[in-house]
Amino acid sequence: MSSNSIDLAVIPGDGIGPEVVAEAVKVLRRATEGGVEVKLTDYDLGASHWLETGEVLNDDTLAAIRQHDAILFGAVGAAPGDTRIPSGLIERELLLKLRFTLDHFVNLRPAKLYPGVPSPLSHPGDIDFVVVREGTEGPYVGNGGALRVGTEHEIATEVSINTAHGVERVVRDAFARAAERERKKVTLVHKHNVLVNAGHLWRRTVESVAAEFPEVSHDYMHVDAATIFMTTDPGRFDVIVTDNLFGDILTDLAGAVTGGIGLAASGNINMDRTEPSMFEPVHGSAPDIAGQQKADPTAAILSVALLLEHVGLPEAARAVERAVEEDITSRAELTDERSTAEIGDAIVSLVA
Amino acid sequence: MSSNSIDLAVIPGDGIGPEVVAEAVKVLRRATEGGVEVKLTDYDLGASHWLETGEVLNDDTLAAIRQHDAILFGAVGAAPGDTRIPSGLIERELLLKLRFTLDHFVNLRPAKLYPGVPSPLSHPGDIDFVVVREGTEGPYVGNGGALRVGTEHEIATEVSINTAHGVERVVRDAFARAAERERKKVTLVHKHNVLVNAGHLWRRTVESVAAEFPEVSHDYMHVDAATIFMTTDPGRFDVIVTDNLFGDILTDLAGAVTGGIGLAASGNINMDRTEPSMFEPVHGSAPDIAGQQKADPTAAILSVALLLEHVGLPEAARAVERAVEEDITSRAELTDERSTAEIGDAIVSLVA
Ligand SMILES: CC(C)[C@H](C(=O)O)[C@@H](O)C(=O)O
Ligand SMILES: CC(C)[C@H](C(=O)O)[C@@H](O)C(=O)O
Repeated sequence: MSSNSIDLAVIPGDGIGPEVVAEAVKVLRRATEGGVEVKLTDYDLGASHWLETGEVLNDDTLAAIRQHDAILFGAVGAAPGDTRIPSGLIERELLLKLRFTLDHFVNLRPAKLYPGVPSPLSHPGDIDFVVVREGTEGPYVGNGGALRVGTEHEIATEVSINTAHGVERVVRDAFARAAERERKKVTLVHKHNVLVNAGHLWRRTVESVAAEFPEVSHDYMHVDAATIFMTTDPGRFDVIVTDNLFGDILTDLAGAVTGGIGLAASGNINMDRTEPSMFEPVHGSAPDIAGQQKADPTAAILSVALLLEHVGLPEAARAVERAVEEDITSRAELTDERSTAEIGDAIVSLVA
Repeated sequence: MSSNSIDLAVIPGDGIGPEVVAEAVKVLRRATEGGVEVKLTDYDLGASHWLETGEVLNDDTLAAIRQHDAILFGAVGAAPGDTRIPSGLIERELLLKLRFTLDHFVNLRPAKLYPGVPSPLSHPGDIDFVVVREGTEGPYVGNGGALRVGTEHEIATEVSINTAHGVERVVRDAFARAAERERKKVTLVHKHNVLVNAGHLWRRTVESVAAEFPEVSHDYMHVDAATIFMTTDPGRFDVIVTDNLFGDILTDLAGAVTGGIGLAASGNINMDRTEPSMFEPVHGSAPDIAGQQKADPTAAILSVALLLEHVGLPEAARAVERAVEEDITSRAELTDERSTAEIGDAIVSLVA
């Protein structure tokens, strides 16, 4: 990777994934036009691929993906009614496998309410925060098991694993991001009054990392209380740092209050840059509207902005963000529904 | 316990607990006037008690509490800044200890938007659902540990334990409640695409219990998606059944969208009636406004309605609910802030 060439793996996936990724790619090409050579390699993976081949992600494909500079990911997942595909299989063996194998420890999820976008809240206020969700441990590790399955004596466990290594690097990332922001504030969200062991590790880590960032203030909120403030006063948040599961829950809620997850972008980032990072809309594959040009590609396009930032092209990233912002603020005046491609084209035309 | 006498343990607790419980007791006395003899025994427990005695809940006190028909609980918890009290100690050793020891497997949390109550949502719709939160297992069991604490090699775990016994009884309770309701619908909320072992136990249990209730329909929602619907279309829910942690998170959010947790009641119920059940407002001890008559006692009063229902006095329960509803709907016209006691007195005067 150099700032005049990027070599990307593209995983369009299932459902609306291919449609939104197509628009994201258009915008990416436009934003890098002139200066940067963009090489794209498509990987056909996801539920349909599994149905055709019986494979989710084989070692060769994984090895090939690892050679790229970054990954653009659409969405994966079977239709809810599709009983041919074991529930959660594609999500775990493809999406989570990439996040874990490529050590995407910062799952970055900005939440911003753009001017003119309707929020379900009657007084949303100024919402502009980022959630730094831990991406490689916690209850997502797949540790746990079941005994006497299917009997009245069944016991099923799920083990959340949290390490000093894993917590410290993501907490440090959150403080570093806060230091670059205007309000410079980190909120740790956890449930340390109940989840004592993990909670204390997170709290102690926040205290010790905070000492390295005297200009950044910090506070703490239980996850249940955080959902209340997310609906009554989301403007209070600046940078939220939290574990994998709480981050999953809070970022869907944050997406909802900022106008819907059709706008919510994310980056699965390996901050050590030892493996390619992966950029994806927060939304899922939405099989019910797939192939109908009904999906909003904005979240995928904003994920391209995060990607450009990560690969060292901050000006191109800003240009995409500004184009999206301009398009979004004009939406209130639109009378007709636009197709996925029409939204993509409109944003392309606004990239300066 | 018989329907003409109730013997209650009262644990006012810390912060605003004593203030709201005082009003709840007034309403309870009023609603049972004439027909039912109410005996109340106060137990002085909580953060202040711990500071004075060094004890949270000793065996003798626990044994005494177990002799009562039911428990009315205020709120406990130290002020956030109070470093004398180990974080979460009172919550775990008192509140959770009672829930677990008294086998309160149904943590019942109704969510209703009363007419005239302002919701933070601009289009809340008709909200009237109940969350049946599992109360005795899941990530709340206190299982887990930490290794090499304070070093760079620290590992902290939290184990969620889920049993067929525990899941089945709460799922059956949810279906039984749904069968009594108009819409007759159960929604299981979990995250089975990631938490596979626990998730599959919950899903299979829902499928098998559903077969016993052909008149009740059921569906499934991931917890992250549930937070979205909670802000965009909360009216869709009828009965939600979920685990201890997801229930904690969702019920705070449900409280927020129905006008704030100042109105949210709960029952920690042992449906086998082998131990006393416990009724408490969902809100905490709110140390910042304690002793100032600023707290809203409505949640505590609605918890009395759940208590009356549980001890076999459904008419008294309805009378309390109607009085609360009448008071709440008149609030929009009030110009002055009412004190805790004024709200309590107003509701007392409305109990028919
Ligand atoms: C699909 C699922 C495994 C995933 C997650 O839980 O992380 C999704 O909800 C997300 O937030 O990216
Ligand atoms: C105080 C705390 C332990 C408790 C819980 O997490 O259950 C509270 O949040 C609740 O919802 O009753």
